[in-house]
Amino acid sequence: MSDLHVYDTTLRDGAQQEGLNLSVADKLAIASHLDDLGVGFIEGGWPGANPKDTEFFARAATDLRLKNATLAAFGATRRVGGKAATDPLVRALVDSGAPVVTLVAKSHIGHVERALRTTREENLAMIRDTVSFLRGEGRRVFLDAEHFFDGYAVDRAYALEALRAAFESGAEVAALCDTNGGMLPGQVWDVVTDVVAALALGSGPGGGASGDARLGIHCHNDTGCAVANSMAAVGAGATHVQGTINGYGERTGNANLVTVIANLQLKEGREVMDPHLLQESTRISHAISEITNVPAYSRQPYTGASAFAHKAGLHASAIKVDPDLYQHLDPKHVGNDMRMLISDMAGRASIELKSRELGFDLDPEDEEDSALVQKVLARVKELELRGYTFDAADASFELLLRREIAGALPTFFDIESWRVITDSRPDGDALSEATVKLSAGGKRVLRTGEGNGPVNALDQALRLALATAYPEIEHLELIDFRVRILDAAHGTDAVTRVLIETSDGETTWETIGVAPNILEASWMALVESVTYGLLRAGVPAR
Amino acid sequence: MSDLHVYDTTLRDGAQQEGLNLSVADKLAIASHLDDLGVGFIEGGWPGANPKDTEFFARAATDLRLKNATLAAFGATRRVGGKAATDPLVRALVDSGAPVVTLVAKSHIGHVERALRTTREENLAMIRDTVSFLRGEGRRVFLDAEHFFDGYAVDRAYALEALRAAFESGAEVAALCDTNGGMLPGQVWDVVTDVVAALALGSGPGGGASGDARLGIHCHNDTGCAVANSMAAVGAGATHVQGTINGYGERTGNANLVTVIANLQLKEGREVMDPHLLQESTRISHAISEITNVPAYSRQPYTGASAFAHKAGLHASAIKVDPDLYQHLDPKHVGNDMRMLISDMAGRASIELKSRELGFDLDPEDEEDSALVQKVLARVKELELRGYTFDAADASFELLLRREIAGALPTFFDIESWRVITDSRPDGDALSEATVKLSAGGKRVLRTGEGNGPVNALDQALRLALATAYPEIEHLELIDFRVRILDAAHGTDAVTRVLIETSDGETTWETIGVAPNILEASWMALVESVTYGLLRAGVPAR
Repeated sequence: MSDLHVYDTTLRDGAQQEGLNLSVADKLAIASHLDDLGVGFIEGGWPGANPKDTEFFARAATDLRLKNATLAAFGATRRVGGKAATDPLVRALVDSGAPVVTLVAKSHIGHVERALRTTREENLAMIRDTVSFLRGEGRRVFLDAEHFFDGYAVDRAYALEALRAAFESGAEVAALCDTNGGMLPGQVWDVVTDVVAALALGSGPGGGASGDARLGIHCHNDTGCAVANSMAAVGAGATHVQGTINGYGERTGNANLVTVIANLQLKEGREVMDPHLLQESTRISHAISEITNVPAYSRQPYTGASAFAHKAGLHASAIKVDPDLYQHLDPKHVGNDMRMLISDMAGRASIELKSRELGFDLDPEDEEDSALVQKVLARVKELELRGYTFDAADASFELLLRREIAGALPTFFDIESWRVITDSRPDGDALSEATVKLSAGGKRVLRTGEGNGPVNALDQALRLALATAYPEIEHLELIDFRVRILDAAHGTDAVTRVLIETSDGETTWETIGVAPNILEASWMALVESVTYGLLRAGVPAR
Repeated sequence: MSDLHVYDTTLRDGAQQEGLNLSVADKLAIASHLDDLGVGFIEGGWPGANPKDTEFFARAATDLRLKNATLAAFGATRRVGGKAATDPLVRALVDSGAPVVTLVAKSHIGHVERALRTTREENLAMIRDTVSFLRGEGRRVFLDAEHFFDGYAVDRAYALEALRAAFESGAEVAALCDTNGGMLPGQVWDVVTDVVAALALGSGPGGGASGDARLGIHCHNDTGCAVANSMAAVGAGATHVQGTINGYGERTGNANLVTVIANLQLKEGREVMDPHLLQESTRISHAISEITNVPAYSRQPYTGASAFAHKAGLHASAIKVDPDLYQHLDPKHVGNDMRMLISDMAGRASIELKSRELGFDLDPEDEEDSALVQKVLARVKELELRGYTFDAADASFELLLRREIAGALPTFFDIESWRVITDSRPDGDALSEATVKLSAGGKRVLRTGEGNGPVNALDQALRLALATAYPEIEHLELIDFRVRILDAAHGTDAVTRVLIETSDGETTWETIGVAPNILEASWMALVESVTYGLLRAGVPAR
């Protein structure tokens, strides 16, 4: 494995993206995914400056079991004229408990004088004092040299002085930040090459940096070159790369970390991370999109839904014969798939695979099995055209498969109808009331449930109606509910996709519903969720 | 003005994007926008291979008045074993009437043998024959050397041979295509440098290429480096750049032409096009998004809605002092604007800035104004704690601000109550029915609306109830509706955030609602959306 630091700042710099607003629970869930991906460092936020981030670090200490990554707390150098030891924001960094502290510091003389409004000497003292103090508290210290490239252009000597101050005080990394994102790869290459030489880095055994001192790179995509700039810096000797998942970030975003890693590993042959982890990147990129609720960008390199999709045309037959002629690498390396937008070759294979995964041993040579796969495939394609996505709803896929296999899905209950009424209340939150009519256990049942939302009310009514015939459902708990409007061009007339996650205390499963009416979509997903729960528990139809 | 060819292939390669489907009218409208942008060449499609493209060229001849651009028809070299003069597809290129014909040709020996299934000699003969024939017909001929970089890696001599065959037969340009998109900038630089030397280009007076012969570059974004690769090729001597508007294209898309031009012109000081035209690029990029119906990518460099948007409260105070410290260039160069976003990172400075943007001139020295800013800030922070996010809801922020300023927000109507009923229907989609009671124009109104979803029904009922007092709302259209469940750990008990985007045909605005009940959150956002619409239209309260 290479010596390169893979440093993720999704939870801090990524969260600066317009429209992206993460709760503490969101941040914990994302951190866990990033750890699964195998990044080396997860920057969790700015404790002290932001109460949400303070809480994140407190909860991370108890709730987050990291397998690969080390947590980093982000913060600034101490106040002008103060002391690091008594600065409350510096104290908050120590109190966060994070083993790494990443300090943002000024290295651009214009920012020192005009934004910070202090002298060049005081800024250097702030760096030295804060780094030394944190080292004394037993923390590893990384420095984010803000606006480094612009500062280097204005006053190279001072920009280098800021880095020296950090290294001499015990900082392990100085990440050169293209904060405004205006650089091009050639410039980045030139500057990093010069900095490596000027600071006499690059002579150590690690290759890029001597001993503990290493240069890092932090890029934004304002010239469309965040990835290329990061690669240029690594090429010139940087051994610490910062970025975010899905390239989230302020303005045009940060460098997309997965793209940078995949380029380094799959194109330049550098072993940055375990190849098995890289194969999780498409799944993890999409899972994090679900948490941020920022629609996944289908044209995203490597992990995008369209990244290996081909409009079948002139070359369709050639692709079948020799796919490598038409793709820049095998999408399996990043856990993605080639898709032929007309041909269904990939579809059959994945249905066979998935069925086997679920315990249905389908023989591709067997005529009956083959016909079944064909039927399931046709059904999946029809449903996906209508907005279904079975990647995110394994349980619904299993139910679909069982419906096509005689005897594989018992009929637990028959629904007659449902209705939900939601009323505004003059002084308080609106109230919802749902009525469900169904037959179960040989009886017709009619029940009404209340909730603080229409789906909650439907969930209550469904449980009440099934409770007598199936007391087992008491253990089921609805733990997540996600809504996406498809084909936004039509506003509220559009189709709604609802994903529901249910738990039985041991495991969780996801079900899906798609309909023009959001409540109908929710109802479909709820019914699937309960059906799957009964099936899983091995309950017979009553 | 520089000698560089700016060659747009939005209408041909861009149209290969998944989900993008352009009518002839769409293509004509896009071509007209591209001409306004000032591109040198517009590749209109493949006449003969595609009836829609044949029609495009026929209609372009009469309907399209190009001020800047030259039309190019795309097509392939003649058939294996045939003659260009009698090949119906080559004939269709001539018949298109386009002054330029861009021929796609094989330069990768593997593709010659395995995809084209012919010999190396026959492929070269196909190039020579087709180029010569088209030159004889009075056309300028450009060659797209498909899979050039991959082919160069496999058999450099043959790849160069294909280019020589084209140039010797009268082709003016040979564009090196990274068809599979797997290249990195260093590789592109090396290959283009070698090709320029090997073909003895670069010695002419134009700088990059001798006489009429020039190298071009055609990149895809599969490594996230389409822009950087294009820049590398130009740096190494290419004088013809291909790309698409908004980076449309198969898989991860083509090089974003506006990003490449802006980088060359604004970063490298190369005069690629009239600076006044470049200032149209944001407007044109968005106008073309409207035609393609692919939602504009807000993080797009230079022209994206977020490209110059700032969220951090930390930076806001310094931005006020000196905006150039925090942007890589003045967004006016590309017709974009700096925007301050209000978020929970916001401080006083960002509220003051935002208020000024909205036309409220608050004086930070004035005691009353200062108290107002403090009050607004406290309100924003309180609401953001409850799940609001104003960076995605400018209109709701303006309403919040106006509520705090005496007389700045008229009371257009008073709501009494609302109710929504949703019923399952035995054979069809569920139906929703909403009843709204309110007072407007001095009268109490009660109206019921129907919809295929509860929000749609509420929207209908609200419009019906307001129609008499405010006929102006007829122009308002709800164009997007987004739902986010906050704190997912509680499932359907969680708080719901709804964002609504509304259009009046000229501009759009976003409003927000947050509540435990999804319908209440939707109702709040709907009411804000209509209120803002009335305010914008300058309608007095009735």
